[in-house]
Amino acid sequence: MLEARVKQAAVLKKLLDAIKELVTDGNLDCSPDDGISLQAMDNSHVALVSLKLYPDQFESYRCDRSIPLGVNLSSLTKILKCAKDNDVVTLKAADDADSLGLIFESPKEDRVGEYEMKLMDIDQEHLGIPDTQYDATITMGSAEFARICRDLSALGESVKIEASKEGVRFSSDGEVGSGSILLKQTAGSERRAVRAKTDPDDEDDDEEADKKPTIDSEGEEEVEEEEEAPKKRKANGGAKSSKKAKAGSDEEVGVSIILEKQVSLTFSLKYLTNFAKSAPLARAVSLNMSNDVPLLVQFDFEQGTLQFFLAPKISDE
Amino acid sequence: MLEARVKQAAVLKKLLDAIKELVTDGNLDCSPDDGISLQAMDNSHVALVSLKLYPDQFESYRCDRSIPLGVNLSSLTKILKCAKDNDVVTLKAADDADSLGLIFESPKEDRVGEYEMKLMDIDQEHLGIPDTQYDATITMGSAEFARICRDLSALGESVKIEASKEGVRFSSDGEVGSGSILLKQTAGSERRAVRAKTDPDDEDDDEEADKKPTIDSEGEEEVEEEEEAPKKRKANGGAKSSKKAKAGSDEEVGVSIILEKQVSLTFSLKYLTNFAKSAPLARAVSLNMSNDVPLLVQFDFEQGTLQFFLAPKISDE
Amino acid sequence: MLEARVKQAAVLKKLLDAIKELVTDGNLDCSPDDGISLQAMDNSHVALVSLKLYPDQFESYRCDRSIPLGVNLSSLTKILKCAKDNDVVTLKAADDADSLGLIFESPKEDRVGEYEMKLMDIDQEHLGIPDTQYDATITMGSAEFARICRDLSALGESVKIEASKEGVRFSSDGEVGSGSILLKQTAGSERRAVRAKTDPDDEDDDEEADKKPTIDSEGEEEVEEEEEAPKKRKANGGAKSSKKAKAGSDEEVGVSIILEKQVSLTFSLKYLTNFAKSAPLARAVSLNMSNDVPLLVQFDFEQGTLQFFLAPKISDE
Repeated sequence: MLEARVKQAAVLKKLLDAIKELVTDGNLDCSPDDGISLQAMDNSHVALVSLKLYPDQFESYRCDRSIPLGVNLSSLTKILKCAKDNDVVTLKAADDADSLGLIFESPKEDRVGEYEMKLMDIDQEHLGIPDTQYDATITMGSAEFARICRDLSALGESVKIEASKEGVRFSSDGEVGSGSILLKQTAGSERRAVRAKTDPDDEDDDEEADKKPTIDSEGEEEVEEEEEAPKKRKANGGAKSSKKAKAGSDEEVGVSIILEKQVSLTFSLKYLTNFAKSAPLARAVSLNMSNDVPLLVQFDFEQGTLQFFLAPKISDE
Repeated sequence: MLEARVKQAAVLKKLLDAIKELVTDGNLDCSPDDGISLQAMDNSHVALVSLKLYPDQFESYRCDRSIPLGVNLSSLTKILKCAKDNDVVTLKAADDADSLGLIFESPKEDRVGEYEMKLMDIDQEHLGIPDTQYDATITMGSAEFARICRDLSALGESVKIEASKEGVRFSSDGEVGSGSILLKQTAGSERRAVRAKTDPDDEDDDEEADKKPTIDSEGEEEVEEEEEAPKKRKANGGAKSSKKAKAGSDEEVGVSIILEKQVSLTFSLKYLTNFAKSAPLARAVSLNMSNDVPLLVQFDFEQGTLQFFLAPKISDE
Repeated sequence: MLEARVKQAAVLKKLLDAIKELVTDGNLDCSPDDGISLQAMDNSHVALVSLKLYPDQFESYRCDRSIPLGVNLSSLTKILKCAKDNDVVTLKAADDADSLGLIFESPKEDRVGEYEMKLMDIDQEHLGIPDTQYDATITMGSAEFARICRDLSALGESVKIEASKEGVRFSSDGEVGSGSILLKQTAGSERRAVRAKTDPDDEDDDEEADKKPTIDSEGEEEVEEEEEAPKKRKANGGAKSSKKAKAGSDEEVGVSIILEKQVSLTFSLKYLTNFAKSAPLARAVSLNMSNDVPLLVQFDFEQGTLQFFLAPKISDE
C-alpha cells in the first residue's frame, strides 16, 4: 500500500498546472526507495516529461512495494483544485487499487476533504534517459525564462539559444521583424560556477563580486547548502544544473553559465513556453545543452525535480 | 412617494450581483413600515429569492404609501454600475411613477449622477412563506460555502448536505470520482449555539474555548448584540440563523450547528453556486434544513436580509 | 540618422496602447528640432490623432535630418511588449532605413534586447491644425473622464457635454433610461483658472479654499511650475489646457473650467471611450470645446502631448 503525506497542496497543484497541458494520462510510479515518479511523452510525442518526488521530502512516506497508479491528469487537477493551498495532502492507495484516495486537511484541522479518484490501466514503457554531460548549463530565473519565451513568441515560432562566455542569447525572427535578448552572466554566479568546476582562474569576476558583498555571501551559503547533499539529488544528467534552484530568498536569480564548449541550438517556442509554465514551482531553471542532443530544461524544487527534454530543430544554415 | 437614502452604493451593487442571474424582473415592494422588499421565483421556477431592506437601516427613509416598483434587474445593474462604491444613493419615485430616479452623490459632494430608469408593470403574486422551525441550522463563513460549492461542482451535479453533532458534511460524486468535505464545529461557536438553546451541558467545549479566550469573548459580545434586537430581525424562519452573520471583524467565521435532529438532504449544485454569489454581502451564511422541506440559505447584512429557498432533490436511496 | 533614448519603456507602451485601436499605420515623423510626432486620421476617418514627443524630454536625442518612419502600430506594440516597463529604450534608424532598431536595456544593464522592425512606405499628408481659441476648457482627472465615458456607454451611444459656471455635465440616454453626471468645479481650481485670466473676482471660492489650505497651496505651486515654461508646451490650441496635467502627486485631480461662453455639444461615446484609453499616460485630461468646432481632448505627459480631435454630432434639437 501507499501512504504519502505532502505538507502543502500548493506544490502538487503547481506541478499539475505545469504538466497537464503536455501530458493527458500517465503512471505515477510509486516505489519504496525512489518515491513517486512520472515519465511521459507529450501528446504529440515530441517532448519528454520526467517528474521525481523524493521519498525523504514527504512529510511521511510509506510504500510497501512498487505500484503504478494510472491517472488522468485533468481529473487529478480537478480534484486538487478542491484543496486549499496550505492544506496537508495525503495520497492513499491499496496494492491493487482501482482508485486513488486523496485527503486534504486544513492546517487547523477543522476541515477535511476526502476524495476518491478512479485509476486507469496505462501500458507505458519506461524510457531510460542516458546520463549526459552537457556542454553548456545555463541557470537563470524561471520567471525571466518564461518572459523571454512569451516575448519571442510574438515574433516567431522558434528561438535560437546561444551560450557563450559573454552570456546567453535568445533570438527569433518572423514577419514583424527580428529580435534577440542577451542575458549577461551575473558576476557572483560566474565565480560560483567556476568554483564548482574547481578551476578558479578569473580575477575580474572576483573584483566585481567584491562590490556586492551581500549578494555574494548569500551565494556562497547556497553553494554550501547544495554541497551537503550532492548524492540525494543526483538526477539524470541534471545534477550540475541544480545550482541555486532552491534558493528561498526573494532576491532576483542571477544568470550563471557553465561552459565546456560554445553551443547554439534552435527550439520550438511552443514547447519552451509550455515548459516555462513550471516557473511557479522553482525560482530558477537550468537549460542544459549539447550540440545535436535534446535540450534538458530542469526545475528543482524542495520536494523533487521536474525535467523536460526537447530535440533541437535542424537549422537551415 | 418614496425617497430612500442608502449610505453606500456598494451594498446595492453587491445585492444586484447576487440575484441578477437568478431573477430577470421583479417588483421592489416599498412599504411605509417594512422598508423595501423583493420576492421572486428564479427564471426556471425552482428557487425562491426573498430580499428585505429594513426601513431603519437606510440613511433616511420615507414612503407615504405602499408602491410596487417593477424593475428589470439587468437594467438596474447597468445603472448601479455608474455609481462609485462609496457614493450615497437616493432612490426616488412618485406614487404612480413610470420611472425610478436614482441619485449618486460622491462623499465630497463634487460629483452628482442623476439617472432615470423606466419601470415595468409586473403582475406578481406575493407568496406567503411559512415560518418554519428548522431541524438544523448551520452557520458558516460565506466564502467557505462558496468555495465548497465551486469545488464540488467540478465533481458532480448535486451535493448531499449532512448535519450531525460532529459537523456538517458536503459530498458529491460523478465521473471523475467522489469527494466529501467535513467541516467540524468550531469550539466557541458550539458553546454559543448550545447556550442559545439554554442547555449548557457540554464541558469539553468549555475547556477548548478557554484556550482561545479572545475569540470566545468576541463571540459572547455578538450573542448579546443579537439578543438586544431580536424582534427587529424576526425574518421568516430565519431568526435563529442570523447568529454571527453581521460580525464586522476580519476574524474567520467559524462553523456553528444548532441541531434538533440529524438531517441529510441533496441539492442541485447549480443553484447553491448561484446563491453563494451573495458571499460579498455578508461574511456568514446560514443553511437552515429540515427533512422534506426546502432549504433556506440566508445572508444577513447590515441593511437587511437575503433569503434563498430551494427544494431538495428526491434521492434514489 | 536618428538615435533617441527614452528613459522608461512604460511611456511608449502606454502611448501605443492609447492609439493602436484608433490608428493602424502611421508615420513617426522625426525632426531635428521638433522631436518625434505622429499625425493620423482614425481608421474610419472621423477622429484625428496627433502625438508629439518633445526633443528635450528624451534622455538623449539626435536626429540629423527629418525622416518619416512608416510603422504598423500593432507590430510596434508587439515589439514594445518585449520591453520591461523600466527598461531604457533606444530608437535607431539610418537615413534611408527600411527598418527601425529598438534596443531595450534593463536598468542594471544585465539584459539587452535588440529588435529590428520592418518599416513601410506610408503616403500621408500632414494636416495643418488651426490654432483655435476655445470657448470652454475643462480640465479633470483622466481616470474620472474614462469612468464617465464607460458609465454612460451602458446607457446610450452619445454624450452631451455642457460646460457652465456651475460645472460640467455629461448626459446620455437610451432604452434603459437616462442619466447625467455633474462635476462641480473644484474650489481651488476655479480660483486658479480665474487667476490665469487675471480676473480675480470671486470671493466665495476663496472662502471655500481657505478651508482646505493644503490642497490650495499645492495648487498654487503647480500654477507657478506651469508658468515657468509656457513656450515649450505651446501646442496647437491646447496651451491653455495643460493646467495641472503633469501633476506628479497622488492627490486627486480636481475639475477646473475656463469659460468664455457656455458650450453644449454632443459626441459619440465610442470615440471618447477610445480617447480615454490614454488615461494611464497622464493624471489629467483637458476637454477643449467651442460650438460647431471639433472637440480637442488633450493629454499632457512628461515627454510630450497627445491630442484627439472629434467633430460634434449634429443634434436634432
